Amino acid sequence: MASIDESKPEIGLLKVSSKSSPASVAGAIAGMVKDGVAVEIQSVGAGAVNQAIKAIAISRGFLSPVGIQIACVPSFADIVIDGEYRTAIRLKVEPHYTAGVPRLDILEG
Amino acid sequence: MASIDESKPEIGLLKVSSKSSPASVAGAIAGMVKDGVAVEIQSVGAGAVNQAIKAIAISRGFLSPVGIQIACVPSFADIVIDGEYRTAIRLKVEPHYTAGVPRLDILEG
Repeated sequence: MASIDESKPEIGLLKVSSKSSPASVAGAIAGMVKDGVAVEIQSVGAGAVNQAIKAIAISRGFLSPVGIQIACVPSFADIVIDGEYRTAIRLKVEPHYTAGVPRLDILEG
Repeated sequence: MASIDESKPEIGLLKVSSKSSPASVAGAIAGMVKDGVAVEIQSVGAGAVNQAIKAIAISRGFLSPVGIQIACVPSFADIVIDGEYRTAIRLKVEPHYTAGVPRLDILEG
């Protein structure tokens, strides 16, 4: 099993599978973003990546009414599952400033 | 200087399928972003969404050396394919202004 890095509690790593409920993951994302916790989602396989992206799309609907816009930054990560090397997709969820002007009031609130 | 007609900003819509080459799509994304063209990717189905996300991850490697950071904003879109309603995933690719500096200010202040 892959281990979770618990030394940095400010970063929430969500492992999303093809069987994860996008709505449930969306709730977790929204909660962590509201609490100012950095969120990273890890998915292995097309079905898992699809659920993760759907979760982010749903969480936008939870967060935009309170003035928080989010975006995701995808990257590859080499991980080991059951002794085998796999390539995971990491999706970093971040507050998104479309105007280029950081809204400090949101971060501070 | 000469003015550019910005009344209708260009939007490039890339339709990505499960058979699309992530590297090729990545090249298209990077080219359009460098040219200042707004990029939207449309995918239907888990395999297509997976290829699209991989393409965005790869294009980050093309763009970060020239100082451009990108992020994607996922949303749902109802589309019609062959007379049937389907739910597509739209991925808006946007320049990303990381919150690094303001965040550090808050953490340190």
